[in-house]
Amino acid sequence: MQPHGILETAVYAQDLDAAERFYADVLGLTVILREAGRHVFFRCGAGVFLVFHPAITVQPLTQPGHIAVPPHGTTGAGHMAFAMRESEIAAWRERLAAHGVAIEQETVWPNGGHSLYFRDPAGNSIELATPRLWGIEDNTIEKE
Amino acid sequence: MQPHGILETAVYAQDLDAAERFYADVLGLTVILREAGRHVFFRCGAGVFLVFHPAITVQPLTQPGHIAVPPHGTTGAGHMAFAMRESEIAAWRERLAAHGVAIEQETVWPNGGHSLYFRDPAGNSIELATPRLWGIEDNTIEKE
Repeated sequence: MQPHGILETAVYAQDLDAAERFYADVLGLTVILREAGRHVFFRCGAGVFLVFHPAITVQPLTQPGHIAVPPHGTTGAGHMAFAMRESEIAAWRERLAAHGVAIEQETVWPNGGHSLYFRDPAGNSIELATPRLWGIEDNTIEKE
Repeated sequence: MQPHGILETAVYAQDLDAAERFYADVLGLTVILREAGRHVFFRCGAGVFLVFHPAITVQPLTQPGHIAVPPHGTTGAGHMAFAMRESEIAAWRERLAAHGVAIEQETVWPNGGHSLYFRDPAGNSIELATPRLWGIEDNTIEKE
């Protein structure tokens, strides 16, 4: 028995409005849940991408009507990677440029995987990478 | 155009050996890459789960023979969730107990989703959750 995937991936940001604009407008993710000042959640593929305000989520949740969750919260630049298709690499470069998002690094890995690194408004190191980077088949391609 | 999934999910831990024992022995993940003192990576479903030593990854990578990546690193308790099957909830409870891992919180959500929360050795808030929590079909069940 082992987990059969990752369901939630989180980064932290003090300015949740800026984070929402970035992940919705630049990356095209759909907001599924928002609690002003605490978090904004996005659907992404077979999972969800969570952005939390760390100064709020480190405190026990005590608002009436909410189910408390264990406290958590980080400072500093986190890291995560979204999956992109190989056919979309150029389009992502253009999309990031059109939104004034600098590509901090672009890497073609020895195995043919391709990564674009950039920063979200909170300074997190965000990557768009082709699943080939990890020897993972891009099983969504045939759905296009 | 939007990312078609999350490819990499990261948490941070200063004691990577303890992290590796936890994620390999307790959660059953398979190590795919290890650099002593810097990181240990695991395969998980259609993505990878990364554990980094934040004091190392915040520094620019300068070792010869390595492709540098942008610096990142956090302190404090991060959060992420692994996907579990509904049929496995009891088995996960038993597995955690057998390894002396306390369940910090168990929640059945109004929509029927089910979460087990516990801490990794670094204090990160780790969750095992059924995809129903996010209205996501568990499309791996038929593969069993």
